[in-house]
Amino acid sequence: MSWKERWQTYLPAVESAMQALLQPRLPGTARHYAMVAYHLGWRNEQLQKANVPAGKRLRPLLALLVTEAAGGDWHQVVQAAAAIELLHNLSLVHDDIEDNSLMRRHRPTVWSLWGRPQAINVGDSMFALVYEALWKLPENGVPLKRVWQAGQLFNEAIRLLTEGQYLDMQFESEDEVDLTAYLQMVSGKTAALLDISAGTGALLAGCAPACLDAYRRFGFNLGLAFQMEDDILGIWGDESKTGKSAATDILERKKTLPVLYAFARPEVAPMLHAIYHQTEKLSADQVQQVLALLNQVGAKAYTEAEAERYHVTAMAALDEVRNDRPAQADLRALATNLVGRQA
Amino acid sequence: MSWKERWQTYLPAVESAMQALLQPRLPGTARHYAMVAYHLGWRNEQLQKANVPAGKRLRPLLALLVTEAAGGDWHQVVQAAAAIELLHNLSLVHDDIEDNSLMRRHRPTVWSLWGRPQAINVGDSMFALVYEALWKLPENGVPLKRVWQAGQLFNEAIRLLTEGQYLDMQFESEDEVDLTAYLQMVSGKTAALLDISAGTGALLAGCAPACLDAYRRFGFNLGLAFQMEDDILGIWGDESKTGKSAATDILERKKTLPVLYAFARPEVAPMLHAIYHQTEKLSADQVQQVLALLNQVGAKAYTEAEAERYHVTAMAALDEVRNDRPAQADLRALATNLVGRQA
Repeated sequence: MSWKERWQTYLPAVESAMQALLQPRLPGTARHYAMVAYHLGWRNEQLQKANVPAGKRLRPLLALLVTEAAGGDWHQVVQAAAAIELLHNLSLVHDDIEDNSLMRRHRPTVWSLWGRPQAINVGDSMFALVYEALWKLPENGVPLKRVWQAGQLFNEAIRLLTEGQYLDMQFESEDEVDLTAYLQMVSGKTAALLDISAGTGALLAGCAPACLDAYRRFGFNLGLAFQMEDDILGIWGDESKTGKSAATDILERKKTLPVLYAFARPEVAPMLHAIYHQTEKLSADQVQQVLALLNQVGAKAYTEAEAERYHVTAMAALDEVRNDRPAQADLRALATNLVGRQA
Repeated sequence: MSWKERWQTYLPAVESAMQALLQPRLPGTARHYAMVAYHLGWRNEQLQKANVPAGKRLRPLLALLVTEAAGGDWHQVVQAAAAIELLHNLSLVHDDIEDNSLMRRHRPTVWSLWGRPQAINVGDSMFALVYEALWKLPENGVPLKRVWQAGQLFNEAIRLLTEGQYLDMQFESEDEVDLTAYLQMVSGKTAALLDISAGTGALLAGCAPACLDAYRRFGFNLGLAFQMEDDILGIWGDESKTGKSAATDILERKKTLPVLYAFARPEVAPMLHAIYHQTEKLSADQVQQVLALLNQVGAKAYTEAEAERYHVTAMAALDEVRNDRPAQADLRALATNLVGRQA
């Protein structure tokens, strides 16, 4: 089996685990859950049933592949994979409000369709779904102690997610953001969730501490590499593939790695400062100017090299776990495949 | 000991349990937690250390009093009481954004000081703190199974809170909201949290199912009565005591019980409809007009009677639990005291 075939097997189980959670408790609240379903791709803008690609479901795939690679039974831990995907998605619903993003995955964001108050509430409700999914694990025979440990991973990840989001918002108003600060931000915003995706899979499969640690470092470093690739796509990505406007991160003056790298280069820094410090919206010409400055200092190549460096670290952590299970090989193939993605 | 004396004993433990959770993980995020601390009354608007009354801490008081009344050790479950207060407060941080409320407890709301994006993120971060507090219970010797059951109560309460908030927002745009719908909204928005305040205390004290159920019904019905009293305060409350502007609920056209009652009365309904259906902001004159219409049909007396009815139901549920522990008598005294409050 390839990782893609495994994914075809896992996906329906993860989707239905998530869908099963959307049962309203109070009458009259079906529309609230329909908005959750919209974000997850199961409803359209009219909130009618639909099946729209809404995200790669990378994190549950990672969790279940690690479960199998570590010798566990993926059927037993589907709820944990669902919990991770829900956590990821609720953070997107709220991030989209915080970042004023109108589009996500080629579709209007929840807040842009139904307003900020509803979107805040949609995300909040999904926190309950995250923990509710985790809470179902004992029903499938997962020992309570492991569920409790998995819950700790989730609590920490939510902390790091929100701390990372805080740093990201701070950076917008800060002049100098050094690489260390960037890495801390990204370790919270992106890497923490890939860390617990791999970590939850390993933990629930019953890994020993050293094995758990290796899988977590694998996920964490993969997450850093993944974010750096995202930074590249946010500037040089193909709009038709990413679902976001091209150069959107420049327009929003995001302090992503290519931009921070250029800010640290004296030959272009003054020009960048001048453009980024104006109070008006950047013009199309200015966006092109920034692109030219980034290209002048090789910001894309630098970011690609950094992404590759973290990717290599991730693979080394993965290879610390020595086992000859087919799923371990598939996990390696998936991780290799994630480099150089286009969306 | 009276409930007030008990409260003086519990309070410092609950406060320090909450405070101990605010340790940042990532460097540079201290200000994020300072905003959490501001909302909880431990920092001022400049984010310097302060000690400002910020809420009655009613829910943890209820939880710990029930714990003792049910024969448990309150020291062992302080973290659960902290978790409840944090959950209550995060819902306020987000509600204030959703309702566009500028003031809370005589102080500017988090979003009005630091913007909506920060306030959304502050609330999100507090979700992690809620579960982190719960997760500490096994360290104090609470059996894992009970922690897991308490977690289920919390998951359900978050669902109901967000469903109740959804209904509350929907009501703003709906013409006719009947009493049943109002009760469902309030059961989610307010009663669910008092339900689990009492329920968590009882559960962690090791109550049998019938006892747990009685304490939960006590909390739930107390919550309904509490909300109806809040509805009265939102219209007829003394601004200097409530911390909100007088008649604020009329200005915001909230569909609270006194208003819904009046809308169901044909002699004033057409006038109310005319005033509430205009698109402009209500004038001071119109607010006075609404007040006069409410008084004309005795909306305040009706709401007081309803609050009293649920209060009586709550007390009856409490009395199903027959025990002669002093804490049970104190709990009764507290619940009696909650009727007719002024803030």
